[in-house]
Amino acid sequence: MFLRGAFRALALNRNLTPIAVRTFASKQREVPALTCDRYPVQRGSFAELTDDDVAVFRGILGGADTSRVLTAADEVQDYNIDYLRSVRGYGRVVLKPRTTAEVAELLRYCNERRLAVCPQGGNTGLVGGSVPVFDEVVLSLQLMDTIERIDEYSGIVVCQAGCVLATLEEQVGARGLVMPLDLGAKGSCHIGGNVSTNAGGLRLVRYGHLHGSVLGVEAVTAEGRVLDLMSNFKKDNTGYHLKHLFIGSEGTLGIITRLSMFCPTASRSVNVAFLGLHSYDDVKRTFLAAKRGLGEVLSSCEMIDAASLDSCTRFFGLQSPIDKYPFYMLIETSGSDAGHDEEKLARFLEQTMEQGLVQDGTVTNDSTKMK
Amino acid sequence: MFLRGAFRALALNRNLTPIAVRTFASKQREVPALTCDRYPVQRGSFAELTDDDVAVFRGILGGADTSRVLTAADEVQDYNIDYLRSVRGYGRVVLKPRTTAEVAELLRYCNERRLAVCPQGGNTGLVGGSVPVFDEVVLSLQLMDTIERIDEYSGIVVCQAGCVLATLEEQVGARGLVMPLDLGAKGSCHIGGNVSTNAGGLRLVRYGHLHGSVLGVEAVTAEGRVLDLMSNFKKDNTGYHLKHLFIGSEGTLGIITRLSMFCPTASRSVNVAFLGLHSYDDVKRTFLAAKRGLGEVLSSCEMIDAASLDSCTRFFGLQSPIDKYPFYMLIETSGSDAGHDEEKLARFLEQTMEQGLVQDGTVTNDSTKMK
Repeated sequence: MFLRGAFRALALNRNLTPIAVRTFASKQREVPALTCDRYPVQRGSFAELTDDDVAVFRGILGGADTSRVLTAADEVQDYNIDYLRSVRGYGRVVLKPRTTAEVAELLRYCNERRLAVCPQGGNTGLVGGSVPVFDEVVLSLQLMDTIERIDEYSGIVVCQAGCVLATLEEQVGARGLVMPLDLGAKGSCHIGGNVSTNAGGLRLVRYGHLHGSVLGVEAVTAEGRVLDLMSNFKKDNTGYHLKHLFIGSEGTLGIITRLSMFCPTASRSVNVAFLGLHSYDDVKRTFLAAKRGLGEVLSSCEMIDAASLDSCTRFFGLQSPIDKYPFYMLIETSGSDAGHDEEKLARFLEQTMEQGLVQDGTVTNDSTKMK
Repeated sequence: MFLRGAFRALALNRNLTPIAVRTFASKQREVPALTCDRYPVQRGSFAELTDDDVAVFRGILGGADTSRVLTAADEVQDYNIDYLRSVRGYGRVVLKPRTTAEVAELLRYCNERRLAVCPQGGNTGLVGGSVPVFDEVVLSLQLMDTIERIDEYSGIVVCQAGCVLATLEEQVGARGLVMPLDLGAKGSCHIGGNVSTNAGGLRLVRYGHLHGSVLGVEAVTAEGRVLDLMSNFKKDNTGYHLKHLFIGSEGTLGIITRLSMFCPTASRSVNVAFLGLHSYDDVKRTFLAAKRGLGEVLSSCEMIDAASLDSCTRFFGLQSPIDKYPFYMLIETSGSDAGHDEEKLARFLEQTMEQGLVQDGTVTNDSTKMK
């Protein structure tokens, strides 16, 4: 996983592996400066939180003794700081609903009171979008983590938005399915956050983006209205497809509370090749050769330039598996028959090396080496 | 193609093969009753077309001698009758713009004059949605058939909405790509109509629906505003993804004039198996076995019941390739290596027959037999 995670972090600047992030976190335990002190941002004309508001929240989320309304400064702090510890808000309360009805009731109240709300999933985003900028009420989806149904025939999973991606992966994996997206933060990111931000991830080349995989969403608008845009039918083409507005709208149109997603059939065999190349043009031609030669088993194809790989190997104290080249490619195949996949990969490598496109490379199907 | 086309026509009731439709048409050359006489529909309070309007249309579309404004009754008639000759409108004029700017100018004028407009693609729909109900102005996309760009690296085609699906298939095929949708009407249906109606088609099991394949659209709203929602980037996740509203909205939000679409890599090898089964439960279990055993090469999987097959064989005067069973399945594989695909298919058939799921079957990779 190292190279993939590291590459993604540097090249796509979107997601880090949990390992990488933990390294960051332990090195930078100091509390970051407040976002509003660091950037020229202006608080909107929203109301300020009162004790009465907190009492109402407690009433909605289980009563006076509830553990689902956090107000203690040390508990609330983690929800105000992003994954990279680069920005910080000063929200005073964290709400943890369990149901869509609770989310609706909370949003309805906040809307009436003009309290700003910051929805939060796994708080793994790297662009500071998941934490308050000022004193927004944090609405965490953490406790909305029920997997309602996995249908192995249709390949459809129906779940609440707060399910952790890795948990879903494990559960659908047990039914011979695979989640159509995979990213470094999967151990803590929420599927609702993935959908809200239209996360791409490593499997995009094979399974496409979330507009293709998400079959339905249930969302609550700012004024507390529940929109039922659920569907469990891959070929559903009735009416306007409003659910797509919620994919990638980052909470600005409402909070996704439930969703149904199509999961492809899991592949039994996975191979990874790490290649060295002379030029960007060779990378392009190798990409085309991979699409044609590996066809349906090609599941990931990423480029790394020398500077990126150099930074990664130095930063993480690791070694490149091959000699130095101006460009590298990481090609993953996954398929239903290990023998067939290896044959295709061997033929592809032979041809591209003969053509002088690929200079050097290493291949493995050993999952520990891939990591 | 016979069985597939026939099955689709009966089971999905959406698309017929051009062959089947031609049979229909020649048997029913009589003009169908007017929709407004046959159904209890009420004309909206729209303006009636005048000679002045026609003069304005001519002015926009090339001047007084233009061939792009049809008003002769016999020329206009075909645009008023649907593919199945089951409904008929009485629109008096057909407009054939060539550019987005012309579409915008026409719609702006019609909107100001309160003239109702019926956008029309290939007029291959089977639900009467592509022809006027009353006297709507027909705006045909027929002449907007420019393929602007095919990029074999990214697999992206950019074209006008009036391109015929089969033409696109041919053109992208020459670059080693395949259109992500395939349907019986492809010889005359327009890609813009496919996208407007969110056509599914045969390749859905492999390449997903159009929300996953369409990367961008350009559309003109009823008041003549051009919306540029084009994108040539598969991973684009900026802003709201408004283009999805146009996919499947059937012209109600505007007319799609251009689009960009992701095309997967074409498969070199195609096999088709036609199977006989005892029960619906066996069909379900065979479907699951196909998803798992054929995995990434499974490209189509359809069920046909005895009554449907019977109707088809009788209606088209053809013979079933196998004995009678309560259920049949048509399974298609397509992949990059013929040997591998045949091995996978043989193993799948062997296993499902051994398990008693599949009773009988025939397999071919001969494209004439498939048809």
